[in-house]
Amino acid sequence: MKAHNILLLIFIALCQPAVQHAFLNRFYRSYHEQLRTQIESHSAKYKYEIKTIDMPVDHFSFSVLDTFKLRYLLNNTWQKTKDAPIFFYTGNEGNIETFAQNTGFMWDIAPEFGALLVFAEHRYYGESMPYSNKSYADLSHLGYLTSQQALDDYVDLIQYLRSKPEYKHSPVIVFGGSYGGMLSAWIRIKYPHIVQGAIASSAPILQFSGVTECEAFLRIVTSDFKTAHPNCPKLIRKSWNVIYNITSDDKGKKWLSDNWKLCQPLKNTSDVKQLISYLEDIYTNLAVVNYPYEANFLAPLPAYPVNAVCKRLTNQSLAGIELLTAIHEAISIFTNHTNETKCLDLNDSTPELGAVGWSFQACTEMVMPICSDGVNDMFEPRPWNLDEYTKDCVKQYSVKPQPNLVCEQYGCKDLSTATNIIFSNGLMDPWSSGGVLRNLSSSAIAVVIPESAHHLDLRSSDANDPYSVVLARKYHRFFIRKWIEEYRDKNKNY
Amino acid sequence: MKAHNILLLIFIALCQPAVQHAFLNRFYRSYHEQLRTQIESHSAKYKYEIKTIDMPVDHFSFSVLDTFKLRYLLNNTWQKTKDAPIFFYTGNEGNIETFAQNTGFMWDIAPEFGALLVFAEHRYYGESMPYSNKSYADLSHLGYLTSQQALDDYVDLIQYLRSKPEYKHSPVIVFGGSYGGMLSAWIRIKYPHIVQGAIASSAPILQFSGVTECEAFLRIVTSDFKTAHPNCPKLIRKSWNVIYNITSDDKGKKWLSDNWKLCQPLKNTSDVKQLISYLEDIYTNLAVVNYPYEANFLAPLPAYPVNAVCKRLTNQSLAGIELLTAIHEAISIFTNHTNETKCLDLNDSTPELGAVGWSFQACTEMVMPICSDGVNDMFEPRPWNLDEYTKDCVKQYSVKPQPNLVCEQYGCKDLSTATNIIFSNGLMDPWSSGGVLRNLSSSAIAVVIPESAHHLDLRSSDANDPYSVVLARKYHRFFIRKWIEEYRDKNKNY
Repeated sequence: MKAHNILLLIFIALCQPAVQHAFLNRFYRSYHEQLRTQIESHSAKYKYEIKTIDMPVDHFSFSVLDTFKLRYLLNNTWQKTKDAPIFFYTGNEGNIETFAQNTGFMWDIAPEFGALLVFAEHRYYGESMPYSNKSYADLSHLGYLTSQQALDDYVDLIQYLRSKPEYKHSPVIVFGGSYGGMLSAWIRIKYPHIVQGAIASSAPILQFSGVTECEAFLRIVTSDFKTAHPNCPKLIRKSWNVIYNITSDDKGKKWLSDNWKLCQPLKNTSDVKQLISYLEDIYTNLAVVNYPYEANFLAPLPAYPVNAVCKRLTNQSLAGIELLTAIHEAISIFTNHTNETKCLDLNDSTPELGAVGWSFQACTEMVMPICSDGVNDMFEPRPWNLDEYTKDCVKQYSVKPQPNLVCEQYGCKDLSTATNIIFSNGLMDPWSSGGVLRNLSSSAIAVVIPESAHHLDLRSSDANDPYSVVLARKYHRFFIRKWIEEYRDKNKNY
Repeated sequence: MKAHNILLLIFIALCQPAVQHAFLNRFYRSYHEQLRTQIESHSAKYKYEIKTIDMPVDHFSFSVLDTFKLRYLLNNTWQKTKDAPIFFYTGNEGNIETFAQNTGFMWDIAPEFGALLVFAEHRYYGESMPYSNKSYADLSHLGYLTSQQALDDYVDLIQYLRSKPEYKHSPVIVFGGSYGGMLSAWIRIKYPHIVQGAIASSAPILQFSGVTECEAFLRIVTSDFKTAHPNCPKLIRKSWNVIYNITSDDKGKKWLSDNWKLCQPLKNTSDVKQLISYLEDIYTNLAVVNYPYEANFLAPLPAYPVNAVCKRLTNQSLAGIELLTAIHEAISIFTNHTNETKCLDLNDSTPELGAVGWSFQACTEMVMPICSDGVNDMFEPRPWNLDEYTKDCVKQYSVKPQPNLVCEQYGCKDLSTATNIIFSNGLMDPWSSGGVLRNLSSSAIAVVIPESAHHLDLRSSDANDPYSVVLARKYHRFFIRKWIEEYRDKNKNY
């Protein structure tokens, strides 16, 4: 799902505090541009009513009594009976239409379950702005952008739906991918009396300090490239020094700027570093969306785009200018699959609220360390530096990141009491580094999908889906049915 | 435990919105006066260091960054080893010393477990004032008095303790009685990764709208009186009309004022109603603290004070002035056990912060309906009237009570996923009406103590304890040991 990918941006935020916002914005813009296209093209298939519900800005005090309109989408096409199951998407960092349009799995299975579909927008994203155009103005307005407050929005919305006679005994199954999957898991963990089960796809709830090694994420990216071709990550690793060497003089900078068709020619070391980050982001994005069919995500991409990239990076002897030419050709899979890109723009910084929202969350609760050593991964070595990261967050938002908050609030190490959750993770997905890959209990279960990238299982069924994804979706349906039946059994006397 | 009794005051708050504060204050003052005495007399037995920890006022936003000093008491006399168990009292509505002095069970068992004892004060009570003397000034300061914020205070304190090498792998067992017991149960339900088990004594977590019938509480009070003597509740019920009849003229008012030694003579119907409420409160208090030994709680009382009262109310034919004389003699068990009370003061209204704190909580989250029908109970009929209640809260604090909030936040009807909690309830305790009396799961267990009043099991062992209480404490110790062992087993590889 497109928007989930934004989690990726944490990676950028974490590795390059100084330049994080330019990058966040670049991806966000291209991402939102793509989205508009997608929504139009899908709109015939996925239809919904757009609704709003009044929501307290602060669920945890009686000092702030402001309310706002939280947006949600509703489809009752397949709902046949009273107390129909409610399939509820716990929206994450973006416009809720995005998630409705990119969670085909919910639409695919709604008819078989006769389910009501609900997609709830995450506060401070899309049009669900607690303080309208002042929501991002300062900390006093922005500070209610937290996962706990968002969970309580969803609890309130579910309780509102259930307050209607026709949904009084409706079982509620939540779905989410990436950060949305984290929210799905957490809402079941914290509110098991309200939510009967959760499909948490590619939810890196363990990507936090003291739980997951920060190196893991980029090693998986590297492994994806290695699987495509053993020489591919070696050549990419080799390319960093080649770039530094060639751009060490003006002639080299000009050569690279011209031959790579950069929109702004390289002028100094900072530009070169930015180019390298740009490349690293592309490689990471490619791994995240390494889907088995042509898709339009962050950029229009062919099936298995990592393979497509690595097909051009097989010759171990490539070096110098030849290597850079090959790299440029390879990344054009990402930057210019449609042959319409005139130049590579490393410096796009149009502000985009959604990106700032996530960047704020990454500066408060969602501190997910990612680092590289340049030996076991193909990236430039970058240690995880909380001090630098903190400095940047204080500068940007006047907040200090709280790296222990998530594990304190929701649990990381001891989740053995969790029930009725499927944690699905694609092993090709770098975010599986922080995913739950082992069963937590007899009903909080890990579904490992060897051939899947980022929450492919939540996307609409496709003829090119690998069998492991088909199987995972069967698993999901089996457990959803089980959770619904258990709930009905328990409530049959009402 | 003394302070727990304050929950009782909700009863008053609920039944008599118009006069609730006078009553709250009356009980609080006598309660605090008693406390001072108790603390002094116990101080040789129960010793502790008094500490504070910096705590955010708001755990759930980044908009309010104020901090305050939360107070806690610490005793490490019996701690022998690294990673000793931490026995943690989740403080409720009052000064934390009160709970330390009145939870003898924790002190009694600390040596056998080699446990560290911690008693954490509840924010906005005792000396843990988030905004010092402005804490109660207005809603913007007082609005952070919520159970969720208090739970997070305790989580932060536990995590702070565990951040020290000597407690890094300490199992944490929480204890609490009454509202403190609710907090103990809820902290285990919400933070099972932080707290290993909970002894929740007399915790009426089900005393909420749509879960427990509002009549139940006062029927238990009535039943206690009926057990003492079958005629006792009949005579009490009969007394209301006798009071109304006799006080219908000035002569009767004077007779009653003189013979009952009221500090202020009855002048009008409102005074008469206040007298009736005063009596109802006494009967209810007597049931709550119907302990098997002489105790000094709200008032100095003999063993089984309900029996003592009902011994004077056995003659079914008592009527008119004779009945009122007998009632006056009976209640003197509560009002004048020491023969030192000069007159009965129905009108004491010295403000007391603790009482206002609970009254605010009762006006926001802790909306626990209690009512009477005058047929199945011995009280004047008083239906539960949420509208009246709401009006009073809006008037007092500019807040609207949220009767569904607790069940939404913590669960009431479906708690089947709860683990490692003992819910102990005395069947003589009116608050058992909202207690968990059946096992919720294989490890969230109900311990029903037929002969116990309000959280007697958390008090220090006494030669007069009924055997059912002795047994309940054995149960507690068995499960505490089990939870500790399970935790150690799980962590033995660290």
